[in-house]
Amino acid sequence: MKLTACPGFKAAGFAAGIKNKKQLDMGLIYSEYPATVAGVFTGNLVKAAPVLLDQEKIKSGECRALIVNSGNANCCTGEKGMFDAKNMCAQTATALGIPDNLVLVAATGVIGQPLPMGKISTAIPGLVDSLSDQGFTDLANSIMTTDTTPKILGIQSPIDGKPVHVLGVAKGSGMIHPNMATLLCFICTDVAADPKTLKKVLTCAVDSSFNRITVDGDTSTNDTALLMANGFSGMRIDTPKKEKAFQKILDEICLKLAWMLVKDGEGVTKVVKISVKGAKSDHDARKIANTIAQSNLVKTAFFGEDANWGRIMAAAGRAGIDLIPEKIDIYFDSIQMVKSGTGCGSKAEALATAVLKKSEFEVILDLNKGSGQASVLTCDFSIDYVKINADYRS
Amino acid sequence: MKLTACPGFKAAGFAAGIKNKKQLDMGLIYSEYPATVAGVFTGNLVKAAPVLLDQEKIKSGECRALIVNSGNANCCTGEKGMFDAKNMCAQTATALGIPDNLVLVAATGVIGQPLPMGKISTAIPGLVDSLSDQGFTDLANSIMTTDTTPKILGIQSPIDGKPVHVLGVAKGSGMIHPNMATLLCFICTDVAADPKTLKKVLTCAVDSSFNRITVDGDTSTNDTALLMANGFSGMRIDTPKKEKAFQKILDEICLKLAWMLVKDGEGVTKVVKISVKGAKSDHDARKIANTIAQSNLVKTAFFGEDANWGRIMAAAGRAGIDLIPEKIDIYFDSIQMVKSGTGCGSKAEALATAVLKKSEFEVILDLNKGSGQASVLTCDFSIDYVKINADYRS
Repeated sequence: MKLTACPGFKAAGFAAGIKNKKQLDMGLIYSEYPATVAGVFTGNLVKAAPVLLDQEKIKSGECRALIVNSGNANCCTGEKGMFDAKNMCAQTATALGIPDNLVLVAATGVIGQPLPMGKISTAIPGLVDSLSDQGFTDLANSIMTTDTTPKILGIQSPIDGKPVHVLGVAKGSGMIHPNMATLLCFICTDVAADPKTLKKVLTCAVDSSFNRITVDGDTSTNDTALLMANGFSGMRIDTPKKEKAFQKILDEICLKLAWMLVKDGEGVTKVVKISVKGAKSDHDARKIANTIAQSNLVKTAFFGEDANWGRIMAAAGRAGIDLIPEKIDIYFDSIQMVKSGTGCGSKAEALATAVLKKSEFEVILDLNKGSGQASVLTCDFSIDYVKINADYRS
Repeated sequence: MKLTACPGFKAAGFAAGIKNKKQLDMGLIYSEYPATVAGVFTGNLVKAAPVLLDQEKIKSGECRALIVNSGNANCCTGEKGMFDAKNMCAQTATALGIPDNLVLVAATGVIGQPLPMGKISTAIPGLVDSLSDQGFTDLANSIMTTDTTPKILGIQSPIDGKPVHVLGVAKGSGMIHPNMATLLCFICTDVAADPKTLKKVLTCAVDSSFNRITVDGDTSTNDTALLMANGFSGMRIDTPKKEKAFQKILDEICLKLAWMLVKDGEGVTKVVKISVKGAKSDHDARKIANTIAQSNLVKTAFFGEDANWGRIMAAAGRAGIDLIPEKIDIYFDSIQMVKSGTGCGSKAEALATAVLKKSEFEVILDLNKGSGQASVLTCDFSIDYVKINADYRS
């Protein structure tokens, strides 16, 4: 059974009219019990007001609610933007009857427009009234911008024989790049854990998931990943063994959500795993994998179902990492296309072209230099990406 | 009058059948007199055979001819590729009756395919027969790949009262990025200069032109810029004053050719100058300008004629350079869109939208932090870029 709720948490989505259509554009998460929290935020120096505010508020390690809107990023909005973000928290706190410092805030959408605070203030009581155990699907819908499907994933799994729950929702389909990054990801769990432990496991999970995907190489101003833990299950994460078990569940949630983000990336028709092995170090492998994963020429070739391995070689060569071109092998899934830096001929190319017709495949680059390795999830670059982003604001 | 020749040089273009169409796909430059030479090559670690060969041969500082083909990059072609490149030089030398060490070679096109040496060998005598003073336009045509127009520019200008000539041809419309870079640029001049001086002025001219443009962020494996000087004018560049005068002419040639490359970039409908000023240093300004110039989101917004300055702010914020978002001003030509990090409102936006409808405009970002500045030439990112690159090999 698909898990779309997490014990002790309620959520809701609401159409506040920010998007000027009858779409859900505001969301709320509420923990019925005191909860601890940790967050990871964008590395962009231009940060939206909600990010700046959360980075302060989250220092307490406590949180009961999160208010979020789509359709407007509340970024580059000056003093008014910060005032509005604080107001969103305060109004939500009042409606919920909890202290203001326990409410976090997030936003996604167009940069540089003032928030329509009238619509938001009007919507908040309605949002609170709509809260329900099963409201997470609405919440996932409410944070969508150019996403075409909501991303929600829940896992129930035992830790030390006791069932615990982890539920994540995420959004983001453009401005996705490995420096943090998803636009927004909110994870609720009914384990109990101190904020330091939460921060540790969240950072680790993000690094091997959201930090390993790229859609367009741009890093958002609003990236926010939050992990809230309300202890409802009675399971406290207080030993290395339990932490490891919890990390495993969290990793699975983040990896699958990251996959969903790339799959639903703007204009995406193919999801491609770029794996680099045989590098001097994991760091080197990751840098090369990222460079290939971000190359517009590689990504347009994927879209054209063209096994153009020369572009992959060229991207690897400009990654700023020492490599020996004459030692490189390249595979499309199990088909070897390049051996020792030169092509394997037309038969291999025909087989590789069949691989490229799939909606998911892997490109493996073996540098044959050492034991370092890394993988990055990327996508093709389609005509629709350009259409979506040329027209996004209008 | 448009200058399309350079005294003492001949050139030719020829349809050798490499492209499988009746297009010019081989070119030759020949100096009737001994000439000195300097070159700048790709920074990509994956280098085509002609680049590797030229880097060795050019050490002598002497050159009489250049043989070039399009339709095949002769890159990632292993030992056969190097053998073929050497053969192209040797056959050209024989046909011209000059020593083999005085012939350089270049190539552009698909990576990873063996050169059709039969067609090339057959074509070389024909190329030599076609050599003429006015053959540079054919040469410019012969090196085109996805270019839609040939790029050729000649200047006659006095140095110390004596007229000298500089003539440049270039190609490149994808894989163009500031790490070198044009795909190919060949410049002939009738001044006399030692190779060291040529290298100095060429490096300087390339750094302020081809290294300041970006089309798609990819760096080619074949980038080659050559400057040949045959002394036919009798003007020797042997004083700082003459060098400065020659540098000025060379800079103008390179800047205008660079502009033509961006203008004819794959799918380009707009040429945009990104200028950053008020940075702590020129280096910082250049890094921010490059990041904005390469952002797919910024470039698709240009294509959509959308004055989406938020994406420009977001790109600046992820450039890895320290900046204060609240101090940033942004202008589209003379229209101020952003003051102190926030938008100037709907009236400014309407005026800026009119600027974006132009085929050329400037975006100015003032960091208000110092006196560092830099400019980069970029273009919009259109549906046609994706179409061109998805279909390029087929």
